Amino acid sequence: VSVLTVNLADNSYDILIGCGVMSSIGSHCVALGLSSRVAVITNPTVNALYGEVVRNSLAGAGYTVSVIEIPDGEVYKNAETLANVYDALIEAGLDRKSFIVALGGGVVGDLAGFAAATYLRGIPFVQVPTTLLAQVDSSVGGKTAIDHPRGKNLIGAFYQPRFVLIDVDSLATLPEREYRAGMAEVIKYGVAIDLIFFEYLEQHVDAIMAMDRECLETLIRRCCQLKAQVVELDEKESGLRAVLNYGHTLGHAFEMLAGYSELVHGEAVAIGMVLAARISVARGHCDAADIKRVSALICRFGLTTQAPIVDRQRLLSAILTDKKSADGAISFICNSGIGNFAIELLLPEELLTLSGLEVCS
Amino acid sequence: VSVLTVNLADNSYDILIGCGVMSSIGSHCVALGLSSRVAVITNPTVNALYGEVVRNSLAGAGYTVSVIEIPDGEVYKNAETLANVYDALIEAGLDRKSFIVALGGGVVGDLAGFAAATYLRGIPFVQVPTTLLAQVDSSVGGKTAIDHPRGKNLIGAFYQPRFVLIDVDSLATLPEREYRAGMAEVIKYGVAIDLIFFEYLEQHVDAIMAMDRECLETLIRRCCQLKAQVVELDEKESGLRAVLNYGHTLGHAFEMLAGYSELVHGEAVAIGMVLAARISVARGHCDAADIKRVSALICRFGLTTQAPIVDRQRLLSAILTDKKSADGAISFICNSGIGNFAIELLLPEELLTLSGLEVCS
Repeated sequence: VSVLTVNLADNSYDILIGCGVMSSIGSHCVALGLSSRVAVITNPTVNALYGEVVRNSLAGAGYTVSVIEIPDGEVYKNAETLANVYDALIEAGLDRKSFIVALGGGVVGDLAGFAAATYLRGIPFVQVPTTLLAQVDSSVGGKTAIDHPRGKNLIGAFYQPRFVLIDVDSLATLPEREYRAGMAEVIKYGVAIDLIFFEYLEQHVDAIMAMDRECLETLIRRCCQLKAQVVELDEKESGLRAVLNYGHTLGHAFEMLAGYSELVHGEAVAIGMVLAARISVARGHCDAADIKRVSALICRFGLTTQAPIVDRQRLLSAILTDKKSADGAISFICNSGIGNFAIELLLPEELLTLSGLEVCS
Repeated sequence: VSVLTVNLADNSYDILIGCGVMSSIGSHCVALGLSSRVAVITNPTVNALYGEVVRNSLAGAGYTVSVIEIPDGEVYKNAETLANVYDALIEAGLDRKSFIVALGGGVVGDLAGFAAATYLRGIPFVQVPTTLLAQVDSSVGGKTAIDHPRGKNLIGAFYQPRFVLIDVDSLATLPEREYRAGMAEVIKYGVAIDLIFFEYLEQHVDAIMAMDRECLETLIRRCCQLKAQVVELDEKESGLRAVLNYGHTLGHAFEMLAGYSELVHGEAVAIGMVLAARISVARGHCDAADIKRVSALICRFGLTTQAPIVDRQRLLSAILTDKKSADGAISFICNSGIGNFAIELLLPEELLTLSGLEVCS
């Protein structure tokens, strides 16, 4: 198992990465001094696959374990599900010394993390991400949230986990669509921060698609390292951390207009990255060859780079609902060449024009 | 205007106390660099009294101001009201650079603070407490929350305001019942932390009941100082801060069983303090004369010291839902003499027995 530390003063924590590490969760919790009662928040699919091993490990370490299932899918990352989770936490008798384990993908991690952040004004929680997306992105950095009918992640908190346990083997059971979508976030790190990593991805497409365990562990570790570096410099996204939103401003808007189900998050981010690359060219931060190279890598992982055609007004209003907007302008993340970024303050209309996006009205 | 600073590293802030200071809110916000758009969250009663002066001051300082009214009363400090507030914040176009002003009593402050803590993962907020209870207690220290059908403040966050603006003159419009109830929290500081302050209260009952402005300003400043000292040592209530819950464990339980309306918070705390004093005697932390002195002061402010008779099982379960419980035992705050405290780990049944409380079954 490899260990990365996210250094955030009082909120520091370790990310543990390895193959078959899920069964060791109980002893890690004990080592950190977590006590007595735990609720594992998960969904039916993941519970069927990994619920038993996690429950047994926790129970074997002496914990009283409850399991709380939430429905599978981004559409359920909402206030109603959260209310049900609160009820279940009270029902299970969790008190201030208890803790939560988030076992699943981004939806489970975001919602369980927000529940942990707000139940009794905050109890400890542990992230056990089982999707590629969650392993390389959402489980690290302390962003927790639920969606609102008017936009993704509008209600949430910055709240760091006590540790993150990443079992690379859990990717073996991930549906192929989810796996490919997760690669969009992986590619993001390459395009916006790390040229060497981008080239590594270009050279390892076959191994990654074949789910080579060693290659996956390397890839996940690098993403977590990059994310940890950014989060350490800017825990609450007052500046630098915005780089992690590369591809997300337009991606989120499309994801929202598609109703959170037509396009899964990573698929929307893939489209958002290609549009971001086009805007970057238009603003002089990179050249057309860079767009091609980014698009090509995205396509090799079986992701589309083609934006759906949506209504202009709805798109503009979806962009404005995004948390990154301030006073009507968007802090938009451009790629500067490949492996670097630049921030431009742009109006939503400018984003549409610069991206050359086809819209209807 | 007198200024107290709450020293919490990155989360430090000032408490400004004075007579007629509400009209200066706009310039204080500008001085702190708060920008552009603000939502004033208040209730109809307070809005009618102070909404205009606050709106005008903010607008005069260049802010775009929206006002969000929530219904008056603890029964509305719930998830439904919170959802309405989120909708209104989105509707008003508040983005990450915007901020919230909580104008009102504890309900407004707790709910608006929690909305600020969780809207877009946290935007700045300002507390303008208009009740005695909020001025001496709930507006300082960053505890924000909503209630759950199963207990008070079960959902919440620690989230510090950017500043607290206390206008002593706003107490002139407070209903007498609220004013008296607020005195319970004032007395709490004396009993649990500060004998000299307790004696000051004993000596100034008439001036306080006559709402002498100078006396009130002194009293509020002292309570805020004491609270700030405790919060600085223990921002997130891992230990010492529990002293501020003196009288609250049983108080909360009675408040909850009475349905949050029969007994207002301070009235319930007054009852809880007398019971806490009895438990303190039973555990050898003070003597019977201390109970009498505490009860006498409470009575002089027109508050009852008589607990309502409730069902034993319901009371036990209400006590256990309290956030202070951990693994079934309660960290109970006793007064040690008057002006000091001691913590005892007690089971709910022991609390009932030691307090000599009359219950039905």
